[in-house]
Amino acid sequence: MFEDSPMATFGLIDYDQASPEVREIYDDIMRTRQVDRVNNFWKAMAHDPALLRRTWEQVKQVMAPGALDAVTKEMIYVAVSATSQCGYCIASHTAAARKAGMTQAMFAELLAVTALANATNRLASGYQVEIDPAFRTS
Amino acid sequence: MFEDSPMATFGLIDYDQASPEVREIYDDIMRTRQVDRVNNFWKAMAHDPALLRRTWEQVKQVMAPGALDAVTKEMIYVAVSATSQCGYCIASHTAAARKAGMTQAMFAELLAVTALANATNRLASGYQVEIDPAFRTS
Amino acid sequence: MFEDSPMATFGLIDYDQASPEVREIYDDIMRTRQVDRVNNFWKAMAHDPALLRRTWEQVKQVMAPGALDAVTKEMIYVAVSATSQCGYCIASHTAAARKAGMTQAMFAELLAVTALANATNRLASGYQVEIDPAFRTS
Amino acid sequence: MFEDSPMATFGLIDYDQASPEVREIYDDIMRTRQVDRVNNFWKAMAHDPALLRRTWEQVKQVMAPGALDAVTKEMIYVAVSATSQCGYCIASHTAAARKAGMTQAMFAELLAVTALANATNRLASGYQVEIDPAFRTS
Amino acid sequence: MFEDSPMATFGLIDYDQASPEVREIYDDIMRTRQVDRVNNFWKAMAHDPALLRRTWEQVKQVMAPGALDAVTKEMIYVAVSATSQCGYCIASHTAAARKAGMTQAMFAELLAVTALANATNRLASGYQVEIDPAFRTS
Amino acid sequence: MFEDSPMATFGLIDYDQASPEVREIYDDIMRTRQVDRVNNFWKAMAHDPALLRRTWEQVKQVMAPGALDAVTKEMIYVAVSATSQCGYCIASHTAAARKAGMTQAMFAELLAVTALANATNRLASGYQVEIDPAFRTS
Repeated sequence: MFEDSPMATFGLIDYDQASPEVREIYDDIMRTRQVDRVNNFWKAMAHDPALLRRTWEQVKQVMAPGALDAVTKEMIYVAVSATSQCGYCIASHTAAARKAGMTQAMFAELLAVTALANATNRLASGYQVEIDPAFRTS
Repeated sequence: MFEDSPMATFGLIDYDQASPEVREIYDDIMRTRQVDRVNNFWKAMAHDPALLRRTWEQVKQVMAPGALDAVTKEMIYVAVSATSQCGYCIASHTAAARKAGMTQAMFAELLAVTALANATNRLASGYQVEIDPAFRTS
Repeated sequence: MFEDSPMATFGLIDYDQASPEVREIYDDIMRTRQVDRVNNFWKAMAHDPALLRRTWEQVKQVMAPGALDAVTKEMIYVAVSATSQCGYCIASHTAAARKAGMTQAMFAELLAVTALANATNRLASGYQVEIDPAFRTS
Repeated sequence: MFEDSPMATFGLIDYDQASPEVREIYDDIMRTRQVDRVNNFWKAMAHDPALLRRTWEQVKQVMAPGALDAVTKEMIYVAVSATSQCGYCIASHTAAARKAGMTQAMFAELLAVTALANATNRLASGYQVEIDPAFRTS
Repeated sequence: MFEDSPMATFGLIDYDQASPEVREIYDDIMRTRQVDRVNNFWKAMAHDPALLRRTWEQVKQVMAPGALDAVTKEMIYVAVSATSQCGYCIASHTAAARKAGMTQAMFAELLAVTALANATNRLASGYQVEIDPAFRTS
Repeated sequence: MFEDSPMATFGLIDYDQASPEVREIYDDIMRTRQVDRVNNFWKAMAHDPALLRRTWEQVKQVMAPGALDAVTKEMIYVAVSATSQCGYCIASHTAAARKAGMTQAMFAELLAVTALANATNRLASGYQVEIDPAFRTS
């Protein structure tokens, strides 16, 4: 019935099937994000509890507001994911960015910058442009 | 003498050598950015005045503050350029972002998000995670 | 019902729902390409009329026959899109290239070159090959 | 003295140092291309004669004129290499394309298409555009 | 009925429809791999028998156990495919790696390394880190 | 004097200039790896001690021998870095892999697989090959 859609390599581990260690991480994800379910991403990682924990700890630490606010961080995530062509990540972080306050106008500008950067990245490499000495000063 | 460094494919066109059409664009770049020189990128594009004009018009339009401010746009540019591995673009847009107000702390968080997104982009694809139906609602 | 297929982030804007500004661009796309519908790509961009116009003007200008003919340009588009892994772009520009005259034999050679270039791109970087001085002369 | 420039991982094998098996391939490269030296790429591969032979046979077969002519093939190579950000490959295949007849105007259009395709590759993925049913028909 | 799923550009060539030349390659694939069907990948390449033969000969030669064993080679294939975001290749080579003996624990570590490398690839480029002279000695 | 070579964005922090927190991490890196210096990569990250610590902890955890041995992990790192075109990472992890026991023959096969995978990644996407149902079973 799902032959058209990809399926996570070892399947998804739902809360009910999860070990206590995995449940504890799921609980922390839901508590931190104030949601009542965890995304498929975490359910697919849960086969490797060490990876699940390490990835979640990192996401929690890196994506928390700091010198940059949450919506800016989510938008950077979308820009990278669109550049890398990761369909799952584009879908999930576009949703996260909108939840964090990204308007349609902000999304449009985000993608316009992403597209422009990808274009000029290839003009600069294609024309073999030398780095200006002025950019070197640290 | 420069055999170790790349050289722009058809060389760089300095202001003095430039045609009136190219000079006019150089003047607009310097005026808009309030600087007294144009970067090598533009000098390498100047062999194709139509490309130079089109690219500059696009940069001017897309990078102007709008729903997103200038420093956020420059940071997205850096995130994309680091993902694409474009050395020239990383150097030039890091300089531009700093000029637009990016602090060292902001830069550190920007790169931390960029690195994390590149990592999870491959976890999501590698584990073949299905997109959650919840992300589908437009 | 469509949970297996991606859906454009803010949905697609059909001709009937479109603003006069968007319709004008749709009309120009259909007139220029001599077709009676616009692709989903344009319908997804239409939420940002400035992006829609800028992207279309650029496509119209860049893809028009010049020093390179239309089919060569479409084939270069396919080579880039296959390298970037953009499913939508591979599908749409393969269709466009075939319409512009690309035969099955031309497609096969196009992809063979694309595959070979992607392979040697990694051999050259992986072996850390120094650029030959002979390639430096501009 | 060369600490700024990358050096091929196991060094370069010059003709004089090469084994008879490697020399035979070098000879075939020089004969086929009607040149009197082989590029660093081949000298770096020569540590693995089986790879050297396999890669050269493939290049000779794939890059020979067929349904596409030599200059079109070299231009596709440049488009892929600029997209992948392979500095060596951009330098070497730009040189090869020019030798095969690529003019400055053709190069400019080639890079304009490459940049545009890289941009729209990210607009299509970023907006999560669904593939038009019309593109599906094989 | 399959409008949601991509379809190979020129369709798939099944054994029954295949020319004698293609059948011979299919037979060699099935014999070498000790399976009774060929994957869609080969059926899609079969429109270009020269490409089919060249690609298969290369796969057979490169993927055979040598200095590296089969499962290590298949895991490297998965790491590259996840980095490139090639859905088909991730699916097919994860299956091949498991058949060659990759356990779930090995897969988890493989993806953890792949994710980490993709992250640090962008930290190194983003921070514009100079190559240590100590890495230069060939 | 170094205008041809990239310089780390905020410079490198040597042991003598480092804060006690950074020195402690440098000490752990040198102790764990049994070396008497830390690479430029760590010296460039040291401007952000939290990133330095998090990245090092992750590298230490992920790269330690487990279901995969150290040399296999370093080779996967090289395969990813060559695919991403990260010059620094190719140089540093090729050195690390050799130190962990990678022979020249293993390196040659590693790169041959990396090149082949990058090629077939684009054949599979370019031909729009559908995933075989047989790969779906988790």
